[in-house]
Amino acid sequence: MTTTPEVPSVNPPAESIPHDNLPPEGSRQTVSRFLRQLQDDICAHLTQLDGKGTFLEDSWERPEGGGGRSRVMKEGAVLEQGGVGFSEVWGSALPPSVLQQRPEAKGHQWYATGTSLVLHPRNPYIPTVHLNYRYFEAGPVWWFGGGADLTPYYPFAEDAAHFHQCLKQACDGHSPNYYPVFKRWCDEYFYIKHRQEMRGVGGIFFDYQDGQAGEIYRGPDAEGPAARQSAAIGPVAPRSWEALFALVQSCAGAFLPSYLPIAQRRQHTEYGDRERSFQLYRRGRYVEFNLVYDRGTIFGLQTNGRTESILMSMPPLARWEYNYQPQAGTPEAELVATYLKPQDWAAWAPLAQ
Amino acid sequence: MTTTPEVPSVNPPAESIPHDNLPPEGSRQTVSRFLRQLQDDICAHLTQLDGKGTFLEDSWERPEGGGGRSRVMKEGAVLEQGGVGFSEVWGSALPPSVLQQRPEAKGHQWYATGTSLVLHPRNPYIPTVHLNYRYFEAGPVWWFGGGADLTPYYPFAEDAAHFHQCLKQACDGHSPNYYPVFKRWCDEYFYIKHRQEMRGVGGIFFDYQDGQAGEIYRGPDAEGPAARQSAAIGPVAPRSWEALFALVQSCAGAFLPSYLPIAQRRQHTEYGDRERSFQLYRRGRYVEFNLVYDRGTIFGLQTNGRTESILMSMPPLARWEYNYQPQAGTPEAELVATYLKPQDWAAWAPLAQ
Repeated sequence: MTTTPEVPSVNPPAESIPHDNLPPEGSRQTVSRFLRQLQDDICAHLTQLDGKGTFLEDSWERPEGGGGRSRVMKEGAVLEQGGVGFSEVWGSALPPSVLQQRPEAKGHQWYATGTSLVLHPRNPYIPTVHLNYRYFEAGPVWWFGGGADLTPYYPFAEDAAHFHQCLKQACDGHSPNYYPVFKRWCDEYFYIKHRQEMRGVGGIFFDYQDGQAGEIYRGPDAEGPAARQSAAIGPVAPRSWEALFALVQSCAGAFLPSYLPIAQRRQHTEYGDRERSFQLYRRGRYVEFNLVYDRGTIFGLQTNGRTESILMSMPPLARWEYNYQPQAGTPEAELVATYLKPQDWAAWAPLAQ
Repeated sequence: MTTTPEVPSVNPPAESIPHDNLPPEGSRQTVSRFLRQLQDDICAHLTQLDGKGTFLEDSWERPEGGGGRSRVMKEGAVLEQGGVGFSEVWGSALPPSVLQQRPEAKGHQWYATGTSLVLHPRNPYIPTVHLNYRYFEAGPVWWFGGGADLTPYYPFAEDAAHFHQCLKQACDGHSPNYYPVFKRWCDEYFYIKHRQEMRGVGGIFFDYQDGQAGEIYRGPDAEGPAARQSAAIGPVAPRSWEALFALVQSCAGAFLPSYLPIAQRRQHTEYGDRERSFQLYRRGRYVEFNLVYDRGTIFGLQTNGRTESILMSMPPLARWEYNYQPQAGTPEAELVATYLKPQDWAAWAPLAQ
């Protein structure tokens, strides 16, 4: 048995990387083609769902290298606003925040491609949803990251369960170890510390998945539930680039089946000022999370990204109210008490009649 | 001529501080009494201005020491929302962000008192306004900070000029050197980098005013206009605690005369959906500034401050719209083109008829 050499922190010679861990020929094109197609598929299905709105596209170029296409639907019938962005960018030096996590990338040109979306439906009974899948290459290292999470305004256990079950199924097809870690990682990431609540009911989130043997969890909280779950599973064997790309394809492919049925079954539910008002109030929390905690947003704003594309995630309208507390016994109170805390949604099942 | 010893960075012996730079007996009570009275006066006049709304008060205590009283008017006739907060707090260790600027405070108990407000008027022709004045003591050091700035939605040069002239007059009564530095410092601080625009027409801002001989400007941008203005003035002589407190009293006292006449002359101007929509859109920028850049907000949220009091500054309603651009030749375009860039408002005068 040979020992896998530890990857040194700066500019490792190519021979220190296991041969079978190299990306295949044309890896960048393969992933970007998939993510571009993902944007196309999602936009096509959302347009069909909406029935009224259409996506307008802005193509943009990045002076340092690359560009993207931002697609926004405004004032649709179902979607009050929806933004779906694809980007493929490259440059000469990754920012310090990324290099801290991936020191092997230092001194190397980098490449990144990703698709992301945030949908703000009009009807408060339809949850807001977010998705992001991304792929990086930088010198000797490559990794996949991303996930999807659901932010309901009204508590429907069957919606949260359906969303999680779709994502779990996508993960489980590759290994039963992924979902339990990625689910907790998502709960950890989409946490609004100053409100002591989650952004919503979560979903899955992962980062720095590079196929190297070791812990599945690569996040910052070494003491949290995701790290503990990952440690309980123990170090996993090396996985090929193809295996991880297949995992991402499955997760991304699970998006439409995870969300469309929820939007479809809630879109005609009647609502009034009370539900609209609560929706706008909760959207304020979405703004707080994105501007105070979201790494992608903060990184983008601080590094002169395309502001309008970065802030496509902002809600069309949001509300703040000093010291608002939902009345006990209402659905609004139930949302906060139960749905904004981590729950094992994938295991939820309706009570037998 | 004796040389003033340089204050060492950690726990200086008391004798290294010039005797005449010590705060007077009862300094904390003196300032907190003034700032509490400021809150009272401002609330009384705003209640009178509004004619319909009233301020509701929440008193709160801080587990580590101290507390405050938050006053909020919701759904007034003139003020859609207004928050005026007073706090007086203390603790055993200042956070790293403050210690970096004031290393002499390390290892000392600290005391801080402040009054702050943000008013979000209903009528889009009335500007939003912000004020904050604060006082710190920590071991051998004390300092005053604060300022006030105006964020109009529609371009009225006379409003911007009036606001600045009131603040300039308050500063000039103490030294002609203050306003030119504090005005530029305000332009520098209330800058939304990712939008490349100022939050509004500015006003004055200052920090770390401790009476020591030296530069008036104590901000982070050693190359900016405020630093250059301060350098052009050159190091100023030591100023007593009493002299700086008097400056703060004058600036704080200028608030009502700087703002009330503007609110009074705009409150009955008719407006429609267009102006309301633009106001809500611009309020989104206020949210972006407060959550992405404002040191007080970020510091408060990250250090378990009272979230509801910190976020009293959030607008009651705000709007985002992908890629919105005001139409050329409109007041909305003029606001962005002229009012969100630094201008010498204090020097503005109406053209002779």
